[in-house]
Amino acid sequence: MDYLPSDHVRLSEDGRAVVYLDQSKLPWKEEFKTVTSIRDMYEAILGLEVRGAPCIGVFAAYAMYVAALKYADKDYETFKESFHKDGEYLNSSRPTAVNLSWAIRRMEGLVEDNSSAGVGQIITMLKKEAEEIHSEDIGLCRRIGENGLTLINDGAALLTHCNAGALATTRYGTQLAPVYIGMERGMHFKLYVDETRPLLQGARLTAYELARAGVDTTLLCDNMAGELMKAGRIDAVIVGADRIAANGDTANKIGTSALSVLANYYHVPFYVFAPYSTIDMSTASGEDIVIEQRAAEELTEKYYVHRMAPEGIKVFNPAFDVTDHELISAIITDRGVLRKPYDKSLKEVF
Amino acid sequence: MDYLPSDHVRLSEDGRAVVYLDQSKLPWKEEFKTVTSIRDMYEAILGLEVRGAPCIGVFAAYAMYVAALKYADKDYETFKESFHKDGEYLNSSRPTAVNLSWAIRRMEGLVEDNSSAGVGQIITMLKKEAEEIHSEDIGLCRRIGENGLTLINDGAALLTHCNAGALATTRYGTQLAPVYIGMERGMHFKLYVDETRPLLQGARLTAYELARAGVDTTLLCDNMAGELMKAGRIDAVIVGADRIAANGDTANKIGTSALSVLANYYHVPFYVFAPYSTIDMSTASGEDIVIEQRAAEELTEKYYVHRMAPEGIKVFNPAFDVTDHELISAIITDRGVLRKPYDKSLKEVF
Repeated sequence: MDYLPSDHVRLSEDGRAVVYLDQSKLPWKEEFKTVTSIRDMYEAILGLEVRGAPCIGVFAAYAMYVAALKYADKDYETFKESFHKDGEYLNSSRPTAVNLSWAIRRMEGLVEDNSSAGVGQIITMLKKEAEEIHSEDIGLCRRIGENGLTLINDGAALLTHCNAGALATTRYGTQLAPVYIGMERGMHFKLYVDETRPLLQGARLTAYELARAGVDTTLLCDNMAGELMKAGRIDAVIVGADRIAANGDTANKIGTSALSVLANYYHVPFYVFAPYSTIDMSTASGEDIVIEQRAAEELTEKYYVHRMAPEGIKVFNPAFDVTDHELISAIITDRGVLRKPYDKSLKEVF
Repeated sequence: MDYLPSDHVRLSEDGRAVVYLDQSKLPWKEEFKTVTSIRDMYEAILGLEVRGAPCIGVFAAYAMYVAALKYADKDYETFKESFHKDGEYLNSSRPTAVNLSWAIRRMEGLVEDNSSAGVGQIITMLKKEAEEIHSEDIGLCRRIGENGLTLINDGAALLTHCNAGALATTRYGTQLAPVYIGMERGMHFKLYVDETRPLLQGARLTAYELARAGVDTTLLCDNMAGELMKAGRIDAVIVGADRIAANGDTANKIGTSALSVLANYYHVPFYVFAPYSTIDMSTASGEDIVIEQRAAEELTEKYYVHRMAPEGIKVFNPAFDVTDHELISAIITDRGVLRKPYDKSLKEVF
């Protein structure tokens, strides 16, 4: 199937560079960039040209492999030192991105564990490891999608918020995995996409990747979602998750919690899609999750020709919110579909 | 009190022109314009420089008076004919605006009813009539505000949607009347303002007029309102109304209905403010209200530097929605506060 996200992060044909879709310019410009220097890779992550935790992880793995090619003729100690230096530097591009440091550590571990193998062989192993990280991501998303399809029927109308799609991973996404996996099986869905203020990930990214994949896609403002539910036009709400607490409370992009209240009121199933690794058993409930406030200019200036609010106005701009576990119909992970009571079902998959 | 809205539509000092605040450029430019020709007045309404039904009505009354000055030296028949011609022309600037045709008809009626008075005297009467229409609007908003203050306590934190404020009327507004009337009495409120996608009336107009009036104002995206309610930071949601059906179902700016569901879920009072004339007893319920779909470009392009969604994407863009009467705690009109059951209380004020 010709949907773009399948290889928006990859090695170049000659295998000596990383090619990626610059997501910071979507949807007005679809530009693939080819990078070989660790500095350009650093800039790609820093500038949000590569975003989405799993996507960053795969990009970093390929980046480290390409970096390694530059000191292929060095002795092991020099190689290891240079590799470590580049890893430290790349990791500093977005220190809070768990998948970034995880992928770099995994590549470094391989170098450390194979001191007797010779640099040439290590480089071959690094390439394999990056490809393995990539295919693990695809496999994980595939399993989430397959599990999701036990709940979602062919022809369903689905409402989305933010982008936990193919662009945030390297194929399929989490929230959108059942849509793409279903399409591979000849199914078709109707997608309603919340624009997702203030950063418009729904309009810019989700609508882009769905339309690109040939999905029947309709864009709406966040405040219009309830009207579709009221009119009986939505079969399920599908969202991603940043963190899932031990009782099932789920942190996700701001606006998710309000959708869960509306879905509950209008009797529409509300499904959370996330990798198993998103579950954080050390967080008892949503009350223990600190909600970060973001910059005022995201509401008042960003993307606009003119400033759209009076100067000096106070702004409430939480990055995410917590959906009460009672309002979640099911949590779909790569390890299966979890149902209420979540404190029990979450324990069982651990 | 120095709040701007008190005279954002008025006669010029010499009484021969209409002065108005160009709302189409708010909040990035605060420009008062002075107009004398009927063509400029027509353009002001057409270009949404003057907006809000009551505000348009008052503007049209002053506009007709200023137009009349130009044929003050004509005989009655010529005067009447020219006046009628200008009225027809001005009315065509926004044919669906009820207050526009209502104000013009009222001014024309005065000309027709006083054929024996002489043109000079008619012009004096027209000025008085325009001033009367203006002060009636202020009085009506004042009564709505006074009635609203029986429900809202000093120090309350209030959440707003869209702009049924001073800018939409000529002073006080409907939704915001209790805030301004309360301030005249030395009270203070904390206002949380939904930006109100897609046209941003909250960010551009409500936040502007509240900040200008010295109100403690905080802007948020529509999808963040539930978080404030959940945290117990909102004492009441206050909204306007475009039309109120006989059973209390209320049409208002898109996003209002979702707020009512959230307010109900989080046990926050939900108040609708509207002039008595908004009640339409010939509409049985919200199901009889047709919801207009607006242009796709309001979501994809308007106000933005770049197009923010893929080309050719389908868009769901209803102009307003209907709030179920069951979710409305009270309807506050110039004739009093209405409570459930609304089919009974609405009949009683008629």
